[in-house]
Amino acid sequence: MKEFFDKEIEEMEVEKCMFPLFVTSAVLQKEKSHVAGFEPEVAWVTKAGKSDLDVDLAIRPTSETVIYPYFSKWIRNHHDLPMKVNQWCNVVRWEFSNPMPFIRSREFYWQEGHTAFATKEEADAEVLEILELYRQIYEEFLAVPVIKGKKSELEKFAGALYTCSIEAFIPNTGRGIQGATSHCLGQNFSAKEFFDITFQNEKEKKDSVWQNSWAYSTRTIGVMVMVHGDDKGLVLPPKVASQQVIVIPVPYRDANTQEIFDACAATVKTLRKAGIRANVDKRDYHTPGWKYSYWEMKGVPLRIEIGPKDLTNNQVRAVRRDNGAKMDLSTVSLVEQVKELLDKIQESLFDSAKQRRDACIQITRTWDEFVEALGQKKLILAPWCDEEEVEKDVKERTKGDTGAAKTLCTPFDQPEMHEGTRCFASGKLAKKWSYWGRSY
Amino acid sequence: MKEFFDKEIEEMEVEKCMFPLFVTSAVLQKEKSHVAGFEPEVAWVTKAGKSDLDVDLAIRPTSETVIYPYFSKWIRNHHDLPMKVNQWCNVVRWEFSNPMPFIRSREFYWQEGHTAFATKEEADAEVLEILELYRQIYEEFLAVPVIKGKKSELEKFAGALYTCSIEAFIPNTGRGIQGATSHCLGQNFSAKEFFDITFQNEKEKKDSVWQNSWAYSTRTIGVMVMVHGDDKGLVLPPKVASQQVIVIPVPYRDANTQEIFDACAATVKTLRKAGIRANVDKRDYHTPGWKYSYWEMKGVPLRIEIGPKDLTNNQVRAVRRDNGAKMDLSTVSLVEQVKELLDKIQESLFDSAKQRRDACIQITRTWDEFVEALGQKKLILAPWCDEEEVEKDVKERTKGDTGAAKTLCTPFDQPEMHEGTRCFASGKLAKKWSYWGRSY
Repeated sequence: MKEFFDKEIEEMEVEKCMFPLFVTSAVLQKEKSHVAGFEPEVAWVTKAGKSDLDVDLAIRPTSETVIYPYFSKWIRNHHDLPMKVNQWCNVVRWEFSNPMPFIRSREFYWQEGHTAFATKEEADAEVLEILELYRQIYEEFLAVPVIKGKKSELEKFAGALYTCSIEAFIPNTGRGIQGATSHCLGQNFSAKEFFDITFQNEKEKKDSVWQNSWAYSTRTIGVMVMVHGDDKGLVLPPKVASQQVIVIPVPYRDANTQEIFDACAATVKTLRKAGIRANVDKRDYHTPGWKYSYWEMKGVPLRIEIGPKDLTNNQVRAVRRDNGAKMDLSTVSLVEQVKELLDKIQESLFDSAKQRRDACIQITRTWDEFVEALGQKKLILAPWCDEEEVEKDVKERTKGDTGAAKTLCTPFDQPEMHEGTRCFASGKLAKKWSYWGRSY
Repeated sequence: MKEFFDKEIEEMEVEKCMFPLFVTSAVLQKEKSHVAGFEPEVAWVTKAGKSDLDVDLAIRPTSETVIYPYFSKWIRNHHDLPMKVNQWCNVVRWEFSNPMPFIRSREFYWQEGHTAFATKEEADAEVLEILELYRQIYEEFLAVPVIKGKKSELEKFAGALYTCSIEAFIPNTGRGIQGATSHCLGQNFSAKEFFDITFQNEKEKKDSVWQNSWAYSTRTIGVMVMVHGDDKGLVLPPKVASQQVIVIPVPYRDANTQEIFDACAATVKTLRKAGIRANVDKRDYHTPGWKYSYWEMKGVPLRIEIGPKDLTNNQVRAVRRDNGAKMDLSTVSLVEQVKELLDKIQESLFDSAKQRRDACIQITRTWDEFVEALGQKKLILAPWCDEEEVEKDVKERTKGDTGAAKTLCTPFDQPEMHEGTRCFASGKLAKKWSYWGRSY
């Protein structure tokens, strides 16, 4: 995913960069709505060795405030624009309520892109271009269906003009999850009183730049685990599985064990040569059955078993992790068949996930329907008046042990809205269809 | 460099990994000599949001103590060995005395490899294998000559059995600098009373693993800057220069400016197509002379100028950053000539750096010779008794405003030592030749 993404943004002329881990409180606080969103969960370094620091240092929760003082120095003239940088780094956000591995962890690894443009049009276009890359990462690599849309005012990034996101859904728990975000920061951070990122435009007048920031994180891994995993363990889509095929020797009584192990090694060699990430489990102190369970738990998409009969028949036995289907593959065209199988597994993981996700989507038009659907762990699509106070009110009215309902996004793909349609929550005239639900 | 290194260690079956930024004080303190070396410069997180943490968290100064609790869980049996992981990450060491960008900065980026073996022989072999990769990075990528050797007991990594390093030298300041290190940790960390990393060996007996750790950091960039830079700015070796060629249009009075700019763009296109990292400086509000200085400061290895005369003669003018040499290149075989020139620049940067480094090496056999050479900023090669107390004494006797002298390394490449040779400092029988000097 990283290779794919880096290549794509390189073509967009985004430069690789690395900025520091620490930011002082004074700089962190420059953009007021931004710091209000992040300060409650900032980790502070206050000591080094045995000495107290003169100034406490925040560990970056995100790097807008770390990077933009440099943008302010580097950008002078419209010839310096657009400026586009991206870094892969760790950030820290101290979750007090519900830390959860990969989904909401106190440290996480991500890429964060930061760009500055002369015009809003350019910034707007990039927000969508990046969002499309995020969709590809989820749908084409992780086999997780997502919805593209815009966040509500209440849910947008602290300090942004607007936030676009892709939203996934976990049917088992009935919760939505924000997959990745692409923000237009407008001229909020670049304003003279904040980071003062100004340039002389083509008419030789001073203007503030238009900025975006966009990120996806190791949360992608958590979403993938939750969407595809089953009671046996992980289920990994072939495109992102570090091992795509595990080959397991199945010796049998008098059969020539060495011959079987050799055939396994040869199979791995053949597959690897064709670019397939394959390995053999050579451990002689575990039974084949033990190994099947072990590699199922690890989520390896395809298992190949080789026993004495297979040797005789010039075939191997293949077992799919996703649906357990078993088949014999002739060793003659093994590479082609394995490649085709891996493609099929990738495709059917997506199709199955999409089917399960779509089955959860429920259109509700009234408060009662909404509450009922929420109780049934649905992904709710409802007509909304788009008022911040109404979203706050919905949160208040649905709060409880399992968390309150909120907007996930207003999808770009809008169903038709008939004239006079009312908001499910306020009864006012609805402005748009939005997705609602509990979320991570 | 990263691509090169990652590919090499992948072939050694080192797995990519990511471990956390934080480590608790209790775990950090497990290996006593290790923590003694690092604790004085550890940065501590003590607050999150407005709350004090129950337990202060150290930001990793290096990750032995972060990773080895996992090794202890993962390694059970000799079949689990060798275990080899590598991560690219940031670490923090709070320098109080002399922080210096890239050379000794409070946060730096590096790779750290951590490996465990069943036998000392395997660990020993890997230490050298990795050291050779570090030599290649310095000599073949950064064009910086280095010396391979072993650190003294006083200078080895805190907690290691022994440390090997590559050492560079900065003639201008007369200081040595440790370029990268490859440590054999022996069974110090794996011991039962520390991290308890034990395995059942082939004879079904319990044994502690043999461990290595090895790292190179962004210090490489600092060393390159100091070794090659001149009064005009950076001088970048072509292999690591993000821009290898800068093309500058040189319009002249009545000459067809557009034609010149087009020729520049076409030249860049041709060079890029051949895999050369080339760019054109199209800015129309700077003179060519201004641009020459600008790109010299940035260290771009080769400048190409295109003016009206060049167009007429189907040639371009090339200027080397390293020695200022100018030449006309025919546009017919431009790619071949530019490639050849870049190779030559790479080679001659190394040769010139080696010549300057070698000119600083001084053999001293007595204390007086040693002190004189130190005053002349030499890289001193001296016969030594290899006693820790003697090194401490040398440090004590040479301390002053510019820092004390210490051992840099005992080179693998040992000059002949005649019987009866005495230590330059103690007068005892010498055991080896070692490099000494002031250092960063």
